[in-house]
Order: sequence, then structure tokens, then C-alpha cells
Amino acid sequence: MRVPAMPLKPSLPEDSKGVMVRLCHVTARLCHSVARLAARLQQFPECYADRNVMRASIAVGLKPDSLKPENLKPGRLKPGSVSLVGAGSGAGDLLTLKALRCLQNADVVVYDRLVGDEVLQMIPGHVERCYVGKARGHHSVPQDEIGELLVQLARQGKTVVRLKGGDPGVFGRMGEELAALDSASIACDIVPGITAASAACAAMGIPLTDRAHAQSLHLITAQLCREGGEPDWASLARTDETLVFYMGLNKIEAICRGLRQAGLADDWPVMLIANASLPNQQHLIGTLADMPMRLAGTPLPSPCLIMVGSVVSMVKERQRMLTSLAPSCFADMEEH
Amino acid sequence: MRVPAMPLKPSLPEDSKGVMVRLCHVTARLCHSVARLAARLQQFPECYADRNVMRASIAVGLKPDSLKPENLKPGRLKPGSVSLVGAGSGAGDLLTLKALRCLQNADVVVYDRLVGDEVLQMIPGHVERCYVGKARGHHSVPQDEIGELLVQLARQGKTVVRLKGGDPGVFGRMGEELAALDSASIACDIVPGITAASAACAAMGIPLTDRAHAQSLHLITAQLCREGGEPDWASLARTDETLVFYMGLNKIEAICRGLRQAGLADDWPVMLIANASLPNQQHLIGTLADMPMRLAGTPLPSPCLIMVGSVVSMVKERQRMLTSLAPSCFADMEEH
Repeated sequence: MRVPAMPLKPSLPEDSKGVMVRLCHVTARLCHSVARLAARLQQFPECYADRNVMRASIAVGLKPDSLKPENLKPGRLKPGSVSLVGAGSGAGDLLTLKALRCLQNADVVVYDRLVGDEVLQMIPGHVERCYVGKARGHHSVPQDEIGELLVQLARQGKTVVRLKGGDPGVFGRMGEELAALDSASIACDIVPGITAASAACAAMGIPLTDRAHAQSLHLITAQLCREGGEPDWASLARTDETLVFYMGLNKIEAICRGLRQAGLADDWPVMLIANASLPNQQHLIGTLADMPMRLAGTPLPSPCLIMVGSVVSMVKERQRMLTSLAPSCFADMEEH
Repeated sequence: MRVPAMPLKPSLPEDSKGVMVRLCHVTARLCHSVARLAARLQQFPECYADRNVMRASIAVGLKPDSLKPENLKPGRLKPGSVSLVGAGSGAGDLLTLKALRCLQNADVVVYDRLVGDEVLQMIPGHVERCYVGKARGHHSVPQDEIGELLVQLARQGKTVVRLKGGDPGVFGRMGEELAALDSASIACDIVPGITAASAACAAMGIPLTDRAHAQSLHLITAQLCREGGEPDWASLARTDETLVFYMGLNKIEAICRGLRQAGLADDWPVMLIANASLPNQQHLIGTLADMPMRLAGTPLPSPCLIMVGSVVSMVKERQRMLTSLAPSCFADMEEH
């Protein structure tokens, strides 16, 4: 057991007294933590058998107790089953407690490219990983092969997590995987996740709906556009709702044109958001008339959300507030 | 300086050797942390001036790297600020890690009746609670008073969490609270939550959208109905999307009639879901024609979601699977 030597009398800076007082305080609390941890280890040795439980809680700034098995909910699947788990928008701390528990109990995690790195880092080291996303220059694994893979892994007696970006129930192609599992009589459950629209708006400091701006929220997949179909622009061209198009970056021109032709004003607000909730989140604000041009001037990475509605007009005021407050009221925000 | 005594030779259980090995390992890491912390304190005494940073890290047993500013999540608010936090659908484990961290770092939590008991139990005991919901026989606190309360608490230098059911950005009346905070120059941030529609569908074993059933998802507040307005039924009466009405249980007749008159078939599927994701979740499946009658025969508690769309037809098959598999494949489910 290697214990590093304590620098008892290091060369201290000018305010050494304050530093030492603080150091003593910290050390005392650490000792206290050790004692409490020791007591807990006696009581619940099995709960810390998986050091990932502890590591995961520490990584997101939580108390270890909060992730103790008895504080987590029942419904854990037995070996030979599949959990379809929402990975959320990408930020590790937007994962739900239930999703984290699933990762910690998994034998194998099947994931694709929409799952964020921060979330992948929360998969315990001993858990097998299976990537079914698009490799550089290659197509992603076809949907029916993913279903077949899940069935095979479950039949091997493994506890399988199928980790999907965002909320698996929202444009997540979960139906096909459920059908494959059902027809093989494999038990499965679903763990919802924070969908990108929620995470993006929260990060921008605005609500998705607001009584002054929108009485409804409409999430639309741009899948339709890709398959040659067209959304019914007339039913979407409303001034009392917030529209969010998923995965439609390469259809921005068609979307802006369709909505303008269906009656929305040229200056109706549009916002693009890429990497929602991540440190490299980027956004672009404009109007139905100028957004395609703006995007050409400032390309954003895909996947990217397209948000249309007057609630976007709240961003400017909110960002002004966030910016003006940042230096004094946000801790540690500017160092990054 | 009080240092608790280390239980060096406590009465150990049978597997005492394993426990001691693990204990030594943990203790060694803690000592290592102390040493590194001491070195760091010399270098960056100011970074520990923020007691939230210190408290949060120490509370979790201190992984030294987590104290490094660059490893801390940005946006952690200092005292005197407000976090608008989504409590999710009610199940404790559908809380996000970030929301839990906010609760653990709060001085005071302001909440209302839509926040589930399981989530309230996760608020640490020392944290002040402030209920602003509807008391029995009384009206809830008016929205402007809630805004004023948040401002007052923040001005007292407290770290305030405003905990709201579901996702605060979806029909959460967050806009009014943001405006109050902005006009008082109070720093705030937003933590998204799992909205009821996501949690309900996951618990029912179905997706919200499915390629075979719905290319879009439309969340609508029944607020409009209550204020004498009417949704534009024609734009809602579509067979290619999933509609979810929030808080509209007492408007079920108007909703079913409106959609039928606008062209949806009498036998178009409808599902009501109360207490989504909780052990006492209840649902009722029917059609636009018979749902008002079914509800009269089997009243559900409020709040209750109204889900309309062909994706509801997936429930029967999925429930059959879940039921047939439940006894053998779900662990721990029955004990609780």
C-alpha cells in the first residue's frame, strides 16, 4: 500500500496561515469521510464492490450514498434481457440515475455515434462495448442487424443495454428494435432520456414553450424530407407554437422555404443548435429568410437542431443576462 | 479540530478480509488526495475560496482531480443564484445527475405539487424547503409571488433551486420566473428534466414516435381550453403524428369531439395515463368515440396525459410481452 508522503512543512506563500487553516479543515473532513466510509464498508460491502458506482458518483459531483443500490429503483433486468436506454443530449450529467444504473449493471452496451463521449466514459471499464454506428467512410449497421445483435447478446445470457442518443422514444427507431426483441421473446424495458430539444433550450437559457410565445411544441423528424416526402407545411406554419426539426441541417433551405410559402413571415425567428448541452455547443440565430445564407457563412456540424418560433426571440435577452452575470455570479465559468 | 476516531479493529463480518483490503485501498487513495490537495492549496488557494466547490468535492470522498477547475462542470452557480430544475415525471431515478447535484448543493428548494414524493425525498435534510403549490382547499401561490420569492431568497445570498415537475421548459411557466430573475439581475441556469410524455411512454413500453405510426410529436397544453380558447383542431387532426395533451383531463370530451369533427376516425386510438412512471401509474385505452364514457366508468386522478395517435395501438402487443415476461425476467420488481 503506497501512501504518498505528506508535505508537512512545504514552502508556503505569503498567506500561509490562511492556507494552513483551510488545509487543516479539509484534512479533518477527509478523515471524517474515511471513518464514515469505513463504517459503511462494513455495513454494505457489496455496494462498493463495484468501484464504478463510487467513481461515477464522484465524477458527476454526487455523494456516494446517492447511487447506493438501495437508493436506486427496482425493476433491474435479469441477465438475458435488454434495456433500451436514453443517453440524453450528450452531457454526462444529463443522464438519468436510472440510465446510469443500467450502464453499471450491464454486461454489454450497444451504442451508436449519437451517444456522447461524456456518457461513454461512464460505462464501467469491465463492460463490453459494441459500436453499431457509422464508421469513417462506411455505412452504419443496418437496423435489422442491430435488432438481431441485441437478440443474440441477450440469448447468450447477457444483461444488454442498448444506449441511444437523446430519448429513445423520440425519433430513436426504437420500434424496430422492440419488434425484434418481442418476436424473440426477449424481456426489455425502456429508460427515457433528455431529448436534444430540451437540453438545447435549457443551455440557451430559454423555455421550449412560453405562454407569451407558444401553446404547443412540435418535434418533427427531417427523415420525411430525406425520403422524398414533404411535411405538410401549412399545418406547421403557425405562430403559436415552437417547431423543432431533428436532423434536418441539410434540409434547412427546404424548411425555410416551405414555412415561408405556407405563410410564416420572412423575419420569423429561427435558431440552429449543434452539440446541444456540450462545451462545444454552437448556435446561429436568424430568420426564415436569411438562415440558409447565415448557415453558408457559418457552417455548423451535424446533428443540429432547427428551432422555429417566436420563443427564439427570448434568446437575445437571456444571453445578455447570462453574459452580464457570468463574471460575477457563475463560478469557474470563464476558465474553460 | 475534531478528527473522528478510525475504527481500526471493528467487529468485522465474515468476509472481513475483503472488506479490509478494500478499506485500505480507499484509505490510501484518500491519503493520496490529502497530499495532492495540500500541494494544490499552495498553488491555487483562491480556487477553494468557493465553499461550494470544496463542499461538493469533499462530500463525495474527494477524487483530487475533481477539484481542478478545469474538471468542474461549468455553470455551477454561486450563492445568490437560482437554478430552475426539472424534477422529471415523479420517479426518483428519472432525475438527472445534474438535478440531483443541484439539490445536494442547494440552501433552499422551492417546489410545488407537481414534484413527486420520491424526488422530494432526495433533498438533503439540512436543505430548507419552500412549498408554493396548492394547499388543500386553497389556491396555489400566484406566479408573480413565486418569482418575487425566488428573488428574495437569492438576495439573501442563498443557493436556490426552483424544482418544477417534468421539464421546466415544457409548459412549466418558466418564462415568468426567468423574467422576474432577469429584472432583478439574479443569475440563473436551467436544468432540463424528463417530461411526462417521455416517461409515460417508456413505462408503457412504447415509443412516442415510430416510423410506422408517427413522423412528428406534438405536445399541447390544455391551458388554452381552460381559458376559453380552442386549439385549431383541423391542424391537430392528423394520422401521421402523436398528440399528447398535458393537463387536459377535464377537457377530454372537448378534445375527442374536436378531433372527430376535424376528421379523425371514431376508432382512432386514445390513451390516458395518470401518475406516469410511478408505481401507481394507471392507464386507460380507448378511442375518440368511447374514451369520455370509459373515463366516466373508470375515473383517473389528475394530472393525467391524453395521448392520441396510432402509436397507442402498439401498447396492447407490448403489454402482452411485458406481462408474459415479467415474472421470470425482471429482478427485484416484486419486492418493492
